[in-house]
Amino acid sequence: MCPVVMCRCLRVVSLACGGILCVVVPDIAYLRSVLPSTTEDAFFDYLCTVDASEVTVSSVPEGSVVFSRVPLLQVKGPLLVVQLLETTLLCLVNYASLVATNAARFRLLAGPEMKLMEIGLRRAQGPDGGLSASKYSYIGGFDYTSNVLAGKLYGIPVRGTIAHSFIMSFTSLEEVQPRVLPPLAGGEPVDLAALAESWLQRVCELLQSPPEKANRGELAAFVSYAITFPHNFQGLLDTYCVMRSGLPNFCAVALALHQLGYRAIGVRLDSGDLVQQSKEIRRVLRACGTTFQVPWFGSIPIAVSNDISEQSLESFIREGSEIDVIGVGTNLVTCPLQPSLGCVYKLVEVNGSPCLKLTEEEEKMTIPGIKAVYRLYDAAGHPFMDLMALEDEPAPNAGQELAVHVLGRRGEATEVRPAAVEPLHRTYFRDGQVCEVLPSLPEVRSHAQASLSRLSPAHRRLREPQPYPVAVTEKLHLLLAELRQARQ
Amino acid sequence: MCPVVMCRCLRVVSLACGGILCVVVPDIAYLRSVLPSTTEDAFFDYLCTVDASEVTVSSVPEGSVVFSRVPLLQVKGPLLVVQLLETTLLCLVNYASLVATNAARFRLLAGPEMKLMEIGLRRAQGPDGGLSASKYSYIGGFDYTSNVLAGKLYGIPVRGTIAHSFIMSFTSLEEVQPRVLPPLAGGEPVDLAALAESWLQRVCELLQSPPEKANRGELAAFVSYAITFPHNFQGLLDTYCVMRSGLPNFCAVALALHQLGYRAIGVRLDSGDLVQQSKEIRRVLRACGTTFQVPWFGSIPIAVSNDISEQSLESFIREGSEIDVIGVGTNLVTCPLQPSLGCVYKLVEVNGSPCLKLTEEEEKMTIPGIKAVYRLYDAAGHPFMDLMALEDEPAPNAGQELAVHVLGRRGEATEVRPAAVEPLHRTYFRDGQVCEVLPSLPEVRSHAQASLSRLSPAHRRLREPQPYPVAVTEKLHLLLAELRQARQ
Repeated sequence: MCPVVMCRCLRVVSLACGGILCVVVPDIAYLRSVLPSTTEDAFFDYLCTVDASEVTVSSVPEGSVVFSRVPLLQVKGPLLVVQLLETTLLCLVNYASLVATNAARFRLLAGPEMKLMEIGLRRAQGPDGGLSASKYSYIGGFDYTSNVLAGKLYGIPVRGTIAHSFIMSFTSLEEVQPRVLPPLAGGEPVDLAALAESWLQRVCELLQSPPEKANRGELAAFVSYAITFPHNFQGLLDTYCVMRSGLPNFCAVALALHQLGYRAIGVRLDSGDLVQQSKEIRRVLRACGTTFQVPWFGSIPIAVSNDISEQSLESFIREGSEIDVIGVGTNLVTCPLQPSLGCVYKLVEVNGSPCLKLTEEEEKMTIPGIKAVYRLYDAAGHPFMDLMALEDEPAPNAGQELAVHVLGRRGEATEVRPAAVEPLHRTYFRDGQVCEVLPSLPEVRSHAQASLSRLSPAHRRLREPQPYPVAVTEKLHLLLAELRQARQ
Repeated sequence: MCPVVMCRCLRVVSLACGGILCVVVPDIAYLRSVLPSTTEDAFFDYLCTVDASEVTVSSVPEGSVVFSRVPLLQVKGPLLVVQLLETTLLCLVNYASLVATNAARFRLLAGPEMKLMEIGLRRAQGPDGGLSASKYSYIGGFDYTSNVLAGKLYGIPVRGTIAHSFIMSFTSLEEVQPRVLPPLAGGEPVDLAALAESWLQRVCELLQSPPEKANRGELAAFVSYAITFPHNFQGLLDTYCVMRSGLPNFCAVALALHQLGYRAIGVRLDSGDLVQQSKEIRRVLRACGTTFQVPWFGSIPIAVSNDISEQSLESFIREGSEIDVIGVGTNLVTCPLQPSLGCVYKLVEVNGSPCLKLTEEEEKMTIPGIKAVYRLYDAAGHPFMDLMALEDEPAPNAGQELAVHVLGRRGEATEVRPAAVEPLHRTYFRDGQVCEVLPSLPEVRSHAQASLSRLSPAHRRLREPQPYPVAVTEKLHLLLAELRQARQ
């Protein structure tokens, strides 16, 4: 019963109106071709008229933390129409909430200062699966994406680094064209390749590393990149040997750039023992900073990637790494710790009568009727319980004692006295129209972080969190008992 | 080193031409907004002219079984252009091949007779992730999908069953409207609700089950469904109690339909011990068939769903289930046993010079140069080795001995004498044009099954398959050693 970040309800709402329920002529022709030939023409005529004009959707705001058993969305409307929406709604909510939750776990582990970059497009479920991953990772608390289309479509900040193949495409400094860069303050352009070579000698001397071990193709790639992006130079260090080639070459080019007034922005590692290497790199950067009197050199950001998981993050913190930026791909977008989220869509009322699906698993039993849902807060401002009531019950009042039945606990009612009460659901879509202003992506992202940070540490921790109680009112409890009885 | 079914290369090829490399004005405007302000205008002008007109792609045919280390695709063209293709190609190939491989594993376990239905849309990575899942599950050997849009777009046969919410929406036979159905042979319409009620008495007597335990809402739902689709009646048995309600109600309606000349098409179970229940259901269906003299009744197909995994399939076989149709969702589309496939895209030649990325992990080392790839077959028709050669080497001849170096094995060359030799790569895209007829989806599906069935059982088995050797020619081996030497 870990907390989950609820996502996509807003998008669903707009889609429900404009997209899903727009049945067009080729769709009807296709359905006619696959349904039994005895299907009446009138059914297809009816399908052409189906729309969401009688559908109302209420939901927790997108980005809210939610708990098992509490309805995320409630959909009202003609039975056929709301049944048609089932798979679409589940498809839109399940993965979106899963990946936002996964991203939020990475953010909790990394702490608020670490920069987190989503780099999962290569392993996502096709192009649109990748877009969903980028969008909901951002909502869950990531800072950047490497998916440029997601940047363009959703305004997510994009970041990337240089590729191994770019570095491997150079073999010597002869290939660098152009070779010169004007100093930032103006003046005659300087041969950066030659300048970097001379810095390489000094850096190698300092590091007591033989200069001939620094790969000249790699140096050429760095120089070429630095001339193109003098304000944004960064080095990927592990195409050849990090300590004898990548790092000396990077320092040489960064120091040459510094001499012309520019500042390098970072290094990246993509293999090996990332913690150990980050410490060695930091030591070398500091040594260069001191020896060559470049104070900012010691704090050049170190970025890492290479199959980063929650475990990796835990080891980074435990071992006191010097890492500043983390790229997470596969383990973010495919959620290997739990590759799917099992939200379901259940019938709870027909023609005004609440209904119930009994099952052998108590966890899977539905809670009947249209419900109001309240989050109850303690005096410290932490939520301590979610409470479901029947729609027509009065809302609980802050400061007043009330009797509730916690799901999964047998026996008597529990008395609680909330310091504050928050109704969780809002109606976003009424009679076929979006009826509430939808928040922007950054607003949803902030709401997710705020919603998570309000949790008490005991409920928020990733390992063995304290179970968060979900309860029903006395009245809903009695209805449940009555329907159960009737079904025995 | 399990075999993998290679997918999506053909789609990639067409996309490379028409889609990815079509940079348009809003894209340029966006890139300009996120790239450093020092980026030259000429670069953006150049980007507007980028296309795939100088790109050539060769690949193994889509649906082929492939092994680790063997290139799936080889892309030639201007460096910038082929680097732009990297992430797109990986995104298109990785998940597609992963899910096709996962589907093929289910097919291998289930055997050729079992009907397999993909039902994963609710847990896929958004709508397009779900479409990819449906398409590549079909290629991997599934028979049907529940994703109607995938049916419409790709021509995959669609199948579904009735929903619990449909059954729960009825409470009594009074709600059935209309109640009558004409017999298949013609004549006066008959009150099917009344007929089913009378059959329910006889069925319950046979089963020694109290008729009042059979839920009348469920019976009403079955009757209503049967009147609408008399040729396609099926029952979902586990909304209430399978043995006391779902099954007697199904038999009653199916026998009533039979009396009018129609044949029910199946039952479905979605919870509980599926093997045990399938046996009990088969026993009851046979008993009804015998008692009421309806010979086909005993062989009504039994479909199951509910978080089916490879393990479930193994237990179905081990315990001798009576299951005929299996719906697989979450464990098919999210591939929890291995949630991602790690194909990579590496530079192997620049300006005619082969290149090599050395790494500490031997498995990750690239094989330099543009390569021809051959699959070598033994006398029994099973492939026994994939061989990489340099592009300009003569192809190996069937029946002739040749010296090869198996990757991962140190020491002397191995002599092999293939009974047959198959070149694996074809050029699908040359100078910006698709240059080979692309197979249809059913053709790719057949090719995948044929490609898998040619494997020897030792290589094909799912648990601890015998490692399949991948080798290089003497000449490629020497080049590898030479480049390695140069990099030391």
